[in-house]
Amino acid sequence: MKYKFSDRVSNLKPSAIREIFKYASDSEVVSLSAGNPSPEAFPSKEIAQISADILSRSPVSVLQYSVSEGYTPLRNHITDYMKKEHNIGREFDDILITTGAQQIMDLCSKAIVNEGDIVICEAPSFIGSLNTFRSYNAKLVGVKVEPDGMSIEGLEKALKSNPAAKFIYTIPNFQNPSGVTMSLEKRKKMYELAKKYEVLIIEDNPYGDLRYSGENVPAIKSFDEDGIVIYAGSFSKVISPGLRVAYCISPKPIFQKLVVCKQGNDVHTNIWSQYVCDEFITKYDFNAHLARLRELYTKKARFCMDLLDKYCAPAITYHKIDGGLFIWCDLPENIDMPTFCKEAVKNKVCVVPGNAFLTDESEKCQSFRINFSTPTDEQLEKGIKILGDLANDRI
Amino acid sequence: MKYKFSDRVSNLKPSAIREIFKYASDSEVVSLSAGNPSPEAFPSKEIAQISADILSRSPVSVLQYSVSEGYTPLRNHITDYMKKEHNIGREFDDILITTGAQQIMDLCSKAIVNEGDIVICEAPSFIGSLNTFRSYNAKLVGVKVEPDGMSIEGLEKALKSNPAAKFIYTIPNFQNPSGVTMSLEKRKKMYELAKKYEVLIIEDNPYGDLRYSGENVPAIKSFDEDGIVIYAGSFSKVISPGLRVAYCISPKPIFQKLVVCKQGNDVHTNIWSQYVCDEFITKYDFNAHLARLRELYTKKARFCMDLLDKYCAPAITYHKIDGGLFIWCDLPENIDMPTFCKEAVKNKVCVVPGNAFLTDESEKCQSFRINFSTPTDEQLEKGIKILGDLANDRI
Repeated sequence: MKYKFSDRVSNLKPSAIREIFKYASDSEVVSLSAGNPSPEAFPSKEIAQISADILSRSPVSVLQYSVSEGYTPLRNHITDYMKKEHNIGREFDDILITTGAQQIMDLCSKAIVNEGDIVICEAPSFIGSLNTFRSYNAKLVGVKVEPDGMSIEGLEKALKSNPAAKFIYTIPNFQNPSGVTMSLEKRKKMYELAKKYEVLIIEDNPYGDLRYSGENVPAIKSFDEDGIVIYAGSFSKVISPGLRVAYCISPKPIFQKLVVCKQGNDVHTNIWSQYVCDEFITKYDFNAHLARLRELYTKKARFCMDLLDKYCAPAITYHKIDGGLFIWCDLPENIDMPTFCKEAVKNKVCVVPGNAFLTDESEKCQSFRINFSTPTDEQLEKGIKILGDLANDRI
Repeated sequence: MKYKFSDRVSNLKPSAIREIFKYASDSEVVSLSAGNPSPEAFPSKEIAQISADILSRSPVSVLQYSVSEGYTPLRNHITDYMKKEHNIGREFDDILITTGAQQIMDLCSKAIVNEGDIVICEAPSFIGSLNTFRSYNAKLVGVKVEPDGMSIEGLEKALKSNPAAKFIYTIPNFQNPSGVTMSLEKRKKMYELAKKYEVLIIEDNPYGDLRYSGENVPAIKSFDEDGIVIYAGSFSKVISPGLRVAYCISPKPIFQKLVVCKQGNDVHTNIWSQYVCDEFITKYDFNAHLARLRELYTKKARFCMDLLDKYCAPAITYHKIDGGLFIWCDLPENIDMPTFCKEAVKNKVCVVPGNAFLTDESEKCQSFRINFSTPTDEQLEKGIKILGDLANDRI
């Protein structure tokens, strides 16, 4: 039989990152290509306690069907926490629990984007979200990321030339892959532009709690008095990604459409994991846990940047980061980036070629992304030394 | 802000069943409207043991990110089990683990259906799947369900008038909502028609293991030598729906597209629950567990049918079932079905109006669906007596 697929997916390729995972499973390869939390970051003992407690005390409540909106106590606790800690959420907002933040991108695309509609993204941006938008046949318009976040002139130009754009997708904190944090000034300007051009903002903030230096910058959602920001939060980087629990805070009319889409998508998110997140943020000291994670990752980030200084200069330059899990590295003009990444794999180090994160993957790109949260210190040193030697041999 | 939603969802309504759940949460209301497994059906003790074991022995393996295809041992064990027990799966097939079978409908729609494409369904059929197809702007063509399954003349007519139909959606065993099981003859005819008209079949089989009388009928997928059947299996009715674990066995080219769509949908299914299912079907006696479920539900189904005989005749007639969780009831011509269902709610019993399951909800329908797995015996007796009294007062 000759299979006929939809136009949406006929040109979709598997995520380059997930393809690279296949090399990463070779135990001899040092993978700097993943985005996994450190294995030391999981509150395993607490999760085991919570799980044992609920499964002995009230198993049916986590094994039965539940409602699409999410587990009510978890929704209430996140709502309170986000309001208190980040001034996020107004009376006009509601909260939906999702199966990871990836699902938020899927539900928003389904509910908001017609085929051929414009989505404005940072360039580079998170490949998983871009691929989800593509899977609804959205047309992506990339706006350059500058050291203080998305170019505001670029954004206004994109909005002017695409008056029917549906939303702006941004990762304002420690952006994946660039590591860049958007300045407060730019956040305010982006908000005003979105308001002026009547376009929604999807603010994706998986790394916001992982700041290692500098001052927190308020979320765009924290000054949303007009109901134009959809906020995506996640427990993947701060409790566990295997749980697949995230949350979307958005104006009620959008929330209602997302709920209908979620019913058709997976009915509801795994209840056990919602229960685990709820108990963990309420019965344990969640802020102390976040402080412990920051301590763990601050060390790893500094160690990684020290290694880049030691082994990669002068051929490879990189952008210093204040948080998150990724460092964006640049090659000099005379080294071909895709060739370099392939040679790195041959030499048993995986990194992600930067063009994978562009709205147009065929654009020339001299950058690659490395991750420091997943590898051990030994692996980091080994991998970065190989990258440095490879690059410095070529200049 | 005036929100602009996609054409897909502008006309989508929340599932009527999930709306009715809201009444069902009133503790005075007897809900015969759900589709939940009996609380007694869950292997709670075994799940608690498996969970405690993995969370103490190897927590990182269930808390870290994983691959979109699903947990490899679970994929292998289901593949072996389905081949051995049901002759399902060939060399050209592969298996994807999904977040409930609802996600299979979502991924198949996304990968196969362009907006405006035809999907052929049984009428009535499972509202959750129909709404997912609708959410991709598929055009639904309903084919009448007869006592031995979908009308084959109706199907051929639908295929002839819709040569570009993308797939036939069928629930061949103890269909939701009609309770009907498709005969072997019709399964073979459906397969031949699909082959002739080059249309795929999605065979949704959540209830197949819950047969209380009669002989098992082979799955359509068991005679798929041409790679035209996508099989949807689920642990929701036989282990637990809160886990959200299902599996899709389909030809590799389709599998590959579904994997790409799943990456963009929720990256992967909760690992803890995949691990629980894997250990439960391999380390415990899964077939003995299924036998215990059949015993439990056989009793409840018979009890429910006895109550319908006792309280509802002659006004309400019903279709005897050999398995599954639902019974389809008919009202006489002189009773208006929607009015009857509303009066039932006022009298503290919830049932699902039959038109909710039609491809065209505005069509006249004299039926409603009841479920017997969720309520206690006392609730069943109370609820069915109220329904019988209401109907018999009106003839």
